[in-house]
Amino acid sequence: MSNKNILKFEAKLEAKEGLNISSKIRTHNLEIDEPKELGGTDKGPNPVELILAALGGCQEIVLRFYGQKLGIDVQSVETTVDGDLDLGGFLGVPNIRPGFQKITATTKVKAKGDPKKISELLKIAEERCPVLDILKNGVPTHISIELA
Amino acid sequence: MSNKNILKFEAKLEAKEGLNISSKIRTHNLEIDEPKELGGTDKGPNPVELILAALGGCQEIVLRFYGQKLGIDVQSVETTVDGDLDLGGFLGVPNIRPGFQKITATTKVKAKGDPKKISELLKIAEERCPVLDILKNGVPTHISIELA
Repeated sequence: MSNKNILKFEAKLEAKEGLNISSKIRTHNLEIDEPKELGGTDKGPNPVELILAALGGCQEIVLRFYGQKLGIDVQSVETTVDGDLDLGGFLGVPNIRPGFQKITATTKVKAKGDPKKISELLKIAEERCPVLDILKNGVPTHISIELA
Repeated sequence: MSNKNILKFEAKLEAKEGLNISSKIRTHNLEIDEPKELGGTDKGPNPVELILAALGGCQEIVLRFYGQKLGIDVQSVETTVDGDLDLGGFLGVPNIRPGFQKITATTKVKAKGDPKKISELLKIAEERCPVLDILKNGVPTHISIELA
């Protein structure tokens, strides 16, 4: 029974010209690139921006999904997510982490319903959002790079 | 001097119909949604799939960027990233985390150059990739949800 709910998600990626990377997620194609200031050709968001979009998207999906489940009329949801990153980490400066130093997400919700249920909804968004858990707590991540 | 290299990245998101979320990252628009099996209309990748694409894209960008810097001819880079997630966490089953249980990325690189420099490149991909750092080590993440 323990593995009944385990889902496997996947993305496939291929480097194109310069820093442009084409990704395929099931039937969806997503171009990843760096802005010109960071050496790319700006054909799409960069990887750390995707992390921020993933968090905002996840928060909003949790609010929508559980809003409906709790009988709350969630009329609108808008989120801004930002992250501070010290480029020194990527450039190899010692004692600076390459990833975000911090991430802040602010969501504005317009909702009608039982105030107790609305409080429950906000608690669920904090506790059950997969991307928030991933970012707050990290994930055992294994990479392998094979030379062809 | 300490804040000289700090960059701020941002994403803005707005809930549309059902679980479809429109995101805006600078000039780029990205539709986020859940597949039909998870209650969405599949207008784009879902948030946890974006996490996987971000990791693969980041690894490939690091290989391309530092390949060029080290004088290595990086001819092709292909990556598959997968993540295992137990849906029970999202559904509120106790003691199951909502996020990925583990993430695995496998990259195939075709590169020509000094073998020592190629070893250095692979080490850099492990040490300086912002998204790998974010996922392995987590980030202080603050969310606030305001009722309009």
